[in-house]
Amino acid sequence: MAAHTISTAGTVNEDLAKERAKCNFNIEEVTNLLDGGKENTIKRKNIENISLDSGAHIDKIPEECLGPKERYENAVRKSCVYAKIVRDEVLTMTGMESFGSPVLRRTSDAFFKEISPFLLHLGMFVPTIMGQATPEQQAQWLPRALNMEILGTYAQTELGHGTFIRGLETTATYDPETEEFIFHSPTLTAYKWWGGGLGKTVNYCIVVAQLYTKGVCYGTHPFLVQIRDEDTHMPLPGVFVGEVGPRMGFHTADNGYLGFDHHRVPRMNMLMKNAQVLKDGTYVKSAKHGKLSYGTMVFVRVELVYEVAFNLAKAVTIATRYSAVRRQCQPRPDQPEPQILDYVTQQHKLFIGIATAHALQFTGYWLWDTFARVIGEMKEGKTDTLPELHALASCLKAVSTSDAASLIEQCRFACGGHGYMASSNLPALYTFVTATRTYEGDYTVLLLQTARYLIKAWEQAEEGKAMTPTVSYLVHSAYNRKAKWDNSCEGITRAFYAVAAGKIEASVNSIRRRMKTGLSFEDAWELTTVQLVAAAEAHCRAVISDTYWKETERMTSSSSAAVRSVMRQLNELFLVYWVLERTGDLLMYSTISGKDIIELQQRYEELLSQLRPNAVGLVEAFDFRDEILNSTLGAYDGRVYERLMEEALKSPLNAEPVNQSFHQHLKPFMQGKL
Amino acid sequence: MAAHTISTAGTVNEDLAKERAKCNFNIEEVTNLLDGGKENTIKRKNIENISLDSGAHIDKIPEECLGPKERYENAVRKSCVYAKIVRDEVLTMTGMESFGSPVLRRTSDAFFKEISPFLLHLGMFVPTIMGQATPEQQAQWLPRALNMEILGTYAQTELGHGTFIRGLETTATYDPETEEFIFHSPTLTAYKWWGGGLGKTVNYCIVVAQLYTKGVCYGTHPFLVQIRDEDTHMPLPGVFVGEVGPRMGFHTADNGYLGFDHHRVPRMNMLMKNAQVLKDGTYVKSAKHGKLSYGTMVFVRVELVYEVAFNLAKAVTIATRYSAVRRQCQPRPDQPEPQILDYVTQQHKLFIGIATAHALQFTGYWLWDTFARVIGEMKEGKTDTLPELHALASCLKAVSTSDAASLIEQCRFACGGHGYMASSNLPALYTFVTATRTYEGDYTVLLLQTARYLIKAWEQAEEGKAMTPTVSYLVHSAYNRKAKWDNSCEGITRAFYAVAAGKIEASVNSIRRRMKTGLSFEDAWELTTVQLVAAAEAHCRAVISDTYWKETERMTSSSSAAVRSVMRQLNELFLVYWVLERTGDLLMYSTISGKDIIELQQRYEELLSQLRPNAVGLVEAFDFRDEILNSTLGAYDGRVYERLMEEALKSPLNAEPVNQSFHQHLKPFMQGKL
Repeated sequence: MAAHTISTAGTVNEDLAKERAKCNFNIEEVTNLLDGGKENTIKRKNIENISLDSGAHIDKIPEECLGPKERYENAVRKSCVYAKIVRDEVLTMTGMESFGSPVLRRTSDAFFKEISPFLLHLGMFVPTIMGQATPEQQAQWLPRALNMEILGTYAQTELGHGTFIRGLETTATYDPETEEFIFHSPTLTAYKWWGGGLGKTVNYCIVVAQLYTKGVCYGTHPFLVQIRDEDTHMPLPGVFVGEVGPRMGFHTADNGYLGFDHHRVPRMNMLMKNAQVLKDGTYVKSAKHGKLSYGTMVFVRVELVYEVAFNLAKAVTIATRYSAVRRQCQPRPDQPEPQILDYVTQQHKLFIGIATAHALQFTGYWLWDTFARVIGEMKEGKTDTLPELHALASCLKAVSTSDAASLIEQCRFACGGHGYMASSNLPALYTFVTATRTYEGDYTVLLLQTARYLIKAWEQAEEGKAMTPTVSYLVHSAYNRKAKWDNSCEGITRAFYAVAAGKIEASVNSIRRRMKTGLSFEDAWELTTVQLVAAAEAHCRAVISDTYWKETERMTSSSSAAVRSVMRQLNELFLVYWVLERTGDLLMYSTISGKDIIELQQRYEELLSQLRPNAVGLVEAFDFRDEILNSTLGAYDGRVYERLMEEALKSPLNAEPVNQSFHQHLKPFMQGKL
Repeated sequence: MAAHTISTAGTVNEDLAKERAKCNFNIEEVTNLLDGGKENTIKRKNIENISLDSGAHIDKIPEECLGPKERYENAVRKSCVYAKIVRDEVLTMTGMESFGSPVLRRTSDAFFKEISPFLLHLGMFVPTIMGQATPEQQAQWLPRALNMEILGTYAQTELGHGTFIRGLETTATYDPETEEFIFHSPTLTAYKWWGGGLGKTVNYCIVVAQLYTKGVCYGTHPFLVQIRDEDTHMPLPGVFVGEVGPRMGFHTADNGYLGFDHHRVPRMNMLMKNAQVLKDGTYVKSAKHGKLSYGTMVFVRVELVYEVAFNLAKAVTIATRYSAVRRQCQPRPDQPEPQILDYVTQQHKLFIGIATAHALQFTGYWLWDTFARVIGEMKEGKTDTLPELHALASCLKAVSTSDAASLIEQCRFACGGHGYMASSNLPALYTFVTATRTYEGDYTVLLLQTARYLIKAWEQAEEGKAMTPTVSYLVHSAYNRKAKWDNSCEGITRAFYAVAAGKIEASVNSIRRRMKTGLSFEDAWELTTVQLVAAAEAHCRAVISDTYWKETERMTSSSSAAVRSVMRQLNELFLVYWVLERTGDLLMYSTISGKDIIELQQRYEELLSQLRPNAVGLVEAFDFRDEILNSTLGAYDGRVYERLMEEALKSPLNAEPVNQSFHQHLKPFMQGKL
């Protein structure tokens, strides 16, 4: 292209500069709130500086320009570099407290557009050893794993089995003669599928298999299985391992398959904290059974709420900055084209994204505290709050991943054609986050788990039993069907609880009506599942709305007036948005009127206009370094068009003026010689 | 992997075979309905046989396993092969009537997962010459273009300008001395961006530029510009052309950028049907002005309604067949894991997809007939129905592309983790179709164009003027605010019109209220756009519901009883689904009650269960050859797991047991030697 056209490096887009001048609150104050305190912001920035200032994360060729093999190889190279920085520099500064922290996860996004093949080593392999191995086993394996002398992953899901863990087919049969387990995949559908890093990277693996000993099956148990030779990296005999092939995203995760043909593993590689097989083959269950390992599953779901909130914050930062730079159309002939951020429909697409990123992050914090409390109680032997936490984490995981993915996609739509460019980073954010809707518990399956808890809670409320906190609203509503409407934030959250109660009651009635016709509970339940999913979702939205509102009040209680004001506007926007999305439910289960709805529509439009001057300030409070956003449209300097062209010029197709396919195919074809 | 595990080639999955036996209607009869008659089905199959039986479409390595450059080169190779088949075999059989037909488009999907770099040659380049060149120009250019001795594309959108065509910056300045136009890109944002095939493939291009002559700008006009040397394919001097870089989809389309530095083009390369520049530089507008070229834009939008319906049909075929094969969970311990198609939540996700594919296809047919009639009238000088058609095509393009994309994604979700595998073809279907929401008119922009027409229509209804057919409901509703509810299909569509009328009225009231405070109409309009978008969407949904219902009745009037029954069930499912999605609007604008809603929820669940035995039959009536579906999950034989593994084994990462990155990076790192 012509050399004269890119010449603005080092400058900042004027419109963005004006937006920054317009912001009426202290951005750093909000950043500190979001980080959970000023000292956390300082520590985060420190870690980011150490990790990124060397420039080790920079790709010469954008990774989308590589083939899948080269892309994987590049990810391995960078994983080693990044892991070394973390091990040798970050952790020596912060100590082990940063190990696996969201800050490190956030920083790693500058290295990996999507994911490192090492992710499950730290995310699942090490935690499983910590949680399910005996102290002796931990002493043997953990030091090497933490020092990354061995690399592992976690293999549970099989080609034929995901949700239904009891249906897993891989067998581990104990042979007392040699004191070994024989691992075997009896069918194709028994092959493990999806393990991140499993395809080519790891040499060890946690394998979940059906344990057989003395002719009896004791169900699924975790084992630590070596799958590759430590020196040559060759798959061990009887181990069939490879990559599952191209995916929608996760391009650098080398998700793998794994099958066994009578592969032998020492007895002591069974993770024996919760159950053991003795030398003679006797199966012994530990006194403390597996409730705590159930806790790990909940833990991963809680983490996902954070993670998707963080990715949504990235997307809305990109789209909001771009909307300040982009100018389009001309509503009035005497004026220049407006910034697209001035269009109310654009504000409608973006501001709910900012608000939802806050709502999910605050709810995530609160869920984390709840989780920590429950774990503490469990250690003291009190496990009765675990079902509530499980029900809560299930629906929050489902709704937060689904909402975040939709809103990221909405940010992409809001950037028009340029949002479709890989260099905007919006496609990768979407394809990455949409996967979270499925893994670690599918959306529909999880909402039905929550629904099961809610139906039981409803029955307990009917019986006058004591209710746990998050379902205490059912007691009240059972006798007070239509919530009295008022337009305040408190009134709105109360009405959302009434909607949830109403939908739970309607589901209960449907199930009972069906049982009266002679159906079993399970059949009646199955026929009502569409309504049950909706009821669990309504419950979850009520909890998120309530938590976001209360946490905003609490967290901003000592903030400056300007910060409190903008945070409240955002919070109110969120609540009113969901009222307008759910008018049907509210007309059914509260006394809201058509007039109220018209007024709230006006209020919503007012809030958009109040938030407009602070929009860029609000997204900049998320405080993303350009390296982490990784976006031509979202960089701090707003050099949108220059960056789009700079990235285009890196495409390998642009390395030569004429592609070889012209000579080979195109020319003979056009000349009729093919 | 172990050789013993894949051994079922040639067999058909038992569950799928049972589904086929269960279907209670004649599948071919529905296929004929969808094709528009038995003779069309025969012709389509004939074209598919000619194109696909040679196996020329088969890739040895899945295209996702290639890097972007190799993927493009493969697409060029196959484009030449496919174009040759079409030119030499298909068209010699069918004559030119198949040229550019949906059947050819459908068949080409077996060759290109997404798109051929030649697509815009036939889709935009040739039609623009036909529509906007003079007969003399056509005689000069068309034979070479149709014979593909030259290849072209269409370049309108610029880096800085999409929606707002008047804002385009590329200039074509006439120089009477040499009788040439001087093409120039004055800024970076003036660079053309997105043209399919522009990056590396085409040698000619329709360029839309601001025409200057005698110092006056006459606005944007189309020109035919040669950009590459026909023999060497080198870009001509003053032409800067290349590929825009990786995108979310369209990986093989080599979308390009194009800039000019005082590039000279002969005067006669201006497309002169509607306007001319004489030798001396005098600008002359033709008597017949550009209404017909406006028709071309509408034509492309009408075509998109078909195209997305077709892609949705593919997705739902894949997901439904997979759901018949996949078994998961165990609601009752004494029974085997059920087919996931038996879960009501799964039916809820899929059957609306089947119904929507029908609804959009039927609406597309009807829109096509309407379009043909309007074009006929225009040729007789009657252009007053064009605004209505434009308003209709705009909202239908917006809603159909958006709905199809969401429902394709829902099909992907319904396939769990395996839906994330590229080999399912669901990711490519989504990333391809989601782009249609943006190009040829962005979702929000198009709905606002329809809204503008609707607001005018509302004012005309108030004034008692005659109304065109699709907005005649506004006359009635203006005096009859709350539609009397009844649960029949006719009652439902009537209520949907009442919702549209109610939302249009509410928007009018908002605009007027704002104008009373002193705002101009344009400012009041802008502040009301969120409501206006919703009103236009409601109008569109009413039209689709009404059309789908009436067309189902009309098209099945001479069908067998079984076919009529299943088609009506699907139609009713569609209507009831949308009632349940829009209860808030219906409670506002009709007399529907809470009791009605509960009854309709039950009716919906009944319809799911009635459709269940015919689900596989219904998707097989779309009659997709395996080559066109291109999916491990959706093939006719249901060998889901075998195909997943077969495809995985083609991944280049699986070509060698140990990837080189182990020796280069991983081993030194793990041994602490990095």
